[in-house]
Amino acid sequence: MIPYIQRLHSAIQKKQTAALVGLDPRWEQLPETIRSSALDKHGDSMIGRASAYEEFCLRIIDVVAPLVPAVKPQSAFFEECGPEGVQALRNVIRAARDAGLIVICDAKRGDIGSTAQAYANAYLAGEDPSSAPFAADALTVNPYMGVDTLQPFVQRASEVGGGLYVLVRTSNPGAGDFQDRTTEGSTLFEAVADGVERLSSEFANGAEYGSIGAVVGATFPKELEELRARMKHVPLLVPGYGSQGGTSKDVASAFDSNGLGAVINSSRGIIFSYRKSPLAEEFGEARWEEAVESAAKLMIADLAEHTPVGNLKSS
Amino acid sequence: MIPYIQRLHSAIQKKQTAALVGLDPRWEQLPETIRSSALDKHGDSMIGRASAYEEFCLRIIDVVAPLVPAVKPQSAFFEECGPEGVQALRNVIRAARDAGLIVICDAKRGDIGSTAQAYANAYLAGEDPSSAPFAADALTVNPYMGVDTLQPFVQRASEVGGGLYVLVRTSNPGAGDFQDRTTEGSTLFEAVADGVERLSSEFANGAEYGSIGAVVGATFPKELEELRARMKHVPLLVPGYGSQGGTSKDVASAFDSNGLGAVINSSRGIIFSYRKSPLAEEFGEARWEEAVESAAKLMIADLAEHTPVGNLKSS
Repeated sequence: MIPYIQRLHSAIQKKQTAALVGLDPRWEQLPETIRSSALDKHGDSMIGRASAYEEFCLRIIDVVAPLVPAVKPQSAFFEECGPEGVQALRNVIRAARDAGLIVICDAKRGDIGSTAQAYANAYLAGEDPSSAPFAADALTVNPYMGVDTLQPFVQRASEVGGGLYVLVRTSNPGAGDFQDRTTEGSTLFEAVADGVERLSSEFANGAEYGSIGAVVGATFPKELEELRARMKHVPLLVPGYGSQGGTSKDVASAFDSNGLGAVINSSRGIIFSYRKSPLAEEFGEARWEEAVESAAKLMIADLAEHTPVGNLKSS
Repeated sequence: MIPYIQRLHSAIQKKQTAALVGLDPRWEQLPETIRSSALDKHGDSMIGRASAYEEFCLRIIDVVAPLVPAVKPQSAFFEECGPEGVQALRNVIRAARDAGLIVICDAKRGDIGSTAQAYANAYLAGEDPSSAPFAADALTVNPYMGVDTLQPFVQRASEVGGGLYVLVRTSNPGAGDFQDRTTEGSTLFEAVADGVERLSSEFANGAEYGSIGAVVGATFPKELEELRARMKHVPLLVPGYGSQGGTSKDVASAFDSNGLGAVINSSRGIIFSYRKSPLAEEFGEARWEEAVESAAKLMIADLAEHTPVGNLKSS
């Protein structure tokens, strides 16, 4: 079985970029054609919204699959549409896998013992998409309950070739409320980082990286640099680029000298690019897929300018 | 609109107990009759497991609805069965509401801004079950990302008459890894507790309790007592009673002198009581519903012995 991190790095080398496209469908922001077609078929209902989310995400996947290594569906927006939305999430994950993309399911789960095991079984398919109902390669998880609560996820990741991204330093304005609290010279997020480094270093078993990653926001560039150095075996998932204000310069330190070790997420900045200047003017809503393609290419070029992506070699 | 905490306290006064039954279906532990009927109909499939979970939980609800004020379905086990499992979760929540029970959905969600809003919309129906696809009265949430990430949940709770239970001190062995870290004399869980007290006190708007609660494990009785005093306006959800080792003496301090301000959860100890001595011998699997009824009554009597439940007055 090929570990998650190897599969991810192969995909990054193949596409020559570490750009990650976040799939965060929001009803009000979908193209009018998709919304009205769903309304015609299903009325203003959860089923209608779910079918619109699925269609929107599937068309995004068609556009970005040749360009980027991975996508990150945000579970919350699908759950908001009830069981039908969750079914759309399953279909979107499957379609992305079928299109050759790595899928990171952003569900931020976390619980104790056998409950954590149930979440891991639900979302971590790893190498074989048929091994879990929601067939993601990797899952985001929350560390608040303690390192023992991460173990069932780690175990499952190890069994199926899956990956994890543990929340370490998030990108929201209030991230510091608890994450910045300092005990004996280290912050909470540094303590969590040290825990994740231990898990991933053990997982790596001599390799450069393990499959236990960390979420570190682009909105705190100095901390990103420090955390990169602190978690040498840990692949990073960096949110906050683009709409949340992080620049390609801010995220450059997330990468090692080979241009590996991190993926940089953009959600709204790509998938709703047709709603915002300048791509809104260039393409308009009628040509929204071209706007999405253009936004993805702009992000890839932007990342390449300040990150050592030039060192990426196809393996 | 009647706030969550008022509806919960009315239900506790009506049933004269603060016992909360956790609905944690696990395939291997279901009664053989339910499993084989599902296998006959659907084979060994996610649909079969989901239908078995639904049947099991619906029959538990029939048994416990006359006895306890509330149930707590654990989302993870339903999600493990994929979209069909999630549909079963929706149906179980609806059936519990129809049976007059308060429903606390244990999903431990947490995310930033509009994503948190989507989770809140998905799970917090509050007073009107038709206002959310998963029609829970209250939801468990994770505070790691910061107080700002709780605000969309609080806002929704306030709009619909819903409630929240923020993870403060969990009942697992490794709970202390991060929760015990001390900064300027207070632990992380105390800092979270202070944040929750502020939210709930504001929510209470002069009343004794707000609808923003806290999860505090029964497995750390001394801390439970301290946290009860520290969070005067905060209703508690106490896991860890029964199977995890907490006793009725351990949880007595969770209550105020009126016997209000807390619910005590038992999951396996009730729903799988027919598998364990002495109820296994008394009833056997064939009479599993009688075992569940008996276990619920034993828990209610046990809680009454050490808690001021005698002071509960029907309002």
